[in-house]
Amino acid sequence: MKAVVVERGASRPTLLDVPDPEPDAGEVLLRTLRVGIDGTDHEVVRGNHGGYPPGDDYQILGHEAVAVVEDANGTDLDAGQLVVPTVRRPAGESNRYFERSEPDMAPDGQYVERGIVGAHGYMSEFFTSHPDFLVPVPDSFAEHGFLVEPVSNSEKAFEHAFAARSAFEWDPESALVLGNGPLGLLTLAMLETESSPFERTYCLGRRDRPDPTVDVIERLGGTYVDSRETAVDSVADAYEPMDFVYEATGYAKHAFETVDALAPNGVGALLGIPNDWEFEVDGGRLHRELVLENKALFGSVNSNARQYEAAKDRLGAFPDWFFDAFVTDVYAPENVEGAFETGDDVIKTVVEFDAP
Amino acid sequence: MKAVVVERGASRPTLLDVPDPEPDAGEVLLRTLRVGIDGTDHEVVRGNHGGYPPGDDYQILGHEAVAVVEDANGTDLDAGQLVVPTVRRPAGESNRYFERSEPDMAPDGQYVERGIVGAHGYMSEFFTSHPDFLVPVPDSFAEHGFLVEPVSNSEKAFEHAFAARSAFEWDPESALVLGNGPLGLLTLAMLETESSPFERTYCLGRRDRPDPTVDVIERLGGTYVDSRETAVDSVADAYEPMDFVYEATGYAKHAFETVDALAPNGVGALLGIPNDWEFEVDGGRLHRELVLENKALFGSVNSNARQYEAAKDRLGAFPDWFFDAFVTDVYAPENVEGAFETGDDVIKTVVEFDAP
Repeated sequence: MKAVVVERGASRPTLLDVPDPEPDAGEVLLRTLRVGIDGTDHEVVRGNHGGYPPGDDYQILGHEAVAVVEDANGTDLDAGQLVVPTVRRPAGESNRYFERSEPDMAPDGQYVERGIVGAHGYMSEFFTSHPDFLVPVPDSFAEHGFLVEPVSNSEKAFEHAFAARSAFEWDPESALVLGNGPLGLLTLAMLETESSPFERTYCLGRRDRPDPTVDVIERLGGTYVDSRETAVDSVADAYEPMDFVYEATGYAKHAFETVDALAPNGVGALLGIPNDWEFEVDGGRLHRELVLENKALFGSVNSNARQYEAAKDRLGAFPDWFFDAFVTDVYAPENVEGAFETGDDVIKTVVEFDAP
Repeated sequence: MKAVVVERGASRPTLLDVPDPEPDAGEVLLRTLRVGIDGTDHEVVRGNHGGYPPGDDYQILGHEAVAVVEDANGTDLDAGQLVVPTVRRPAGESNRYFERSEPDMAPDGQYVERGIVGAHGYMSEFFTSHPDFLVPVPDSFAEHGFLVEPVSNSEKAFEHAFAARSAFEWDPESALVLGNGPLGLLTLAMLETESSPFERTYCLGRRDRPDPTVDVIERLGGTYVDSRETAVDSVADAYEPMDFVYEATGYAKHAFETVDALAPNGVGALLGIPNDWEFEVDGGRLHRELVLENKALFGSVNSNARQYEAAKDRLGAFPDWFFDAFVTDVYAPENVEGAFETGDDVIKTVVEFDAP
């Protein structure tokens, strides 16, 4: 079958002919429809994550997928059913995090991530999986169901943010998303759905108008904040202090500037994964502000099945126009290099193996 | 009546004769038994907090008190009843934070703090208060009831810590208290009560043995960590990664080193209030560790009536020996300067206005 891989030593995606996967007993065979590409895929291709699947000199890419059950292989699933696969699998034997259905909380060494580290991903004509790691989705999700995975990551961050503020009566109104990349825009769209408590949303980027991401921000109802004019630590003064800040830039200074952007009793969710970077901070002031204003900060990675379910509901509440504006290009596997090209006109790209 | 005050321009406590307070309608008159002294009192005396009560050139000190109702003044309280007063009062009109019984979450400008900023404290023979700000305690609390206030601050921090980890199944075992001052030792004692889930506790200080705080740490069942031998960011390697870190040093670098000390999925509570201090951090690494290991950090200040109630239960579960070891000196108001003297033999001092 055709698979999009990064080969050992390479730093770009290529199409490879690999053996068709055979489902083990208890596993199902899946036919891939679409696989989205995000920043993590770019990092895998650049070799930042490492960890090829055991015995292989290539890594099949892709962790944001929507697929059809091709062969239910005696499981409770039905052939023809649409599913979205989760990303983490136990490293070796199962462990308590997977037994609790909380793979997202497993520490380093207790998991592999399909398409990212230690296990093949979904960017191939077929893949196999145990049904425990497949979330059924309605047929209407054939086209954009690959977005369930990234949205589930933000659902987790929202859950943790509200949990962190659950010891008192928190009534958040303002939210700031740091980053106008795909995850930032998806999160802004989530903050703008009807069930969201946020009344005023902001999204930070560094683009000149006209720009498609600025258009999406404003059409969603958010305020675009140009970081070249308003730094994160000036947002509270220039706009308003933020009850919730969601960081999706991977820019390490934003983690610290988030403390300044927050309103009293606010909470900041960090999702970016920066490299080492030493710099100076006014640690005394940041520490004091956290304390005297009851502020909170937390990191969040990956997501669990419950959050995939929440993401399904959330995606159903997105406005129809969003998907067309957000998914800027659809590529055939043969043209996968194009799907990894970046530019101001590109928001989200997807590789299509089979028509939805 | 006699009151321990800091006068404008002074930087040490003095005994002053001030007018007896008169309860307004709806207020009660209280006779003070004992008032504990903590780091905040030292800061008030040094002038770090400022904010004298309107119209006065002196601030009556003290916010950790236990008192007897002298005149119930038509309220629901009974004369002779023992109470512990809370610290915050609305600045002017009441506001939503006080109406929700969450004065601890009120932002700057919406509260004054008795004995700290903008309102007289309890270090006087009598004081007045609305009953809403008085927590009844049993007669057995006459001697050590002044500890309800500091313990309530840690109850709040515990509540927020568990809330912050409530979106998943958190089963913490290890806890590290940063600081062997009075609040650190009280918190260690709390972590060692039977209802606490922590199986292994550690307390960081910088003292040579023999030392009374090290004795208390070890008698409680904790492990003493000498920060001169093991820095906070080495604790995970030297001992074990910590599920919970409680910072009570006010040393700003500890806020950042806490991230290193935490186990995956752990949470750090910051309670110290440092001054400005610029220093270098590996912000990229800290940011990345927060994210990839799902770590959380929050600041916490003050406490509410629910947490005072929890503190009452908690204090009842402390071992008897603790109080004698912890309260190292009791001073008459006339000798208050002694109560503010520090030294390696001093843990907690208290000013006694009337015999418990």
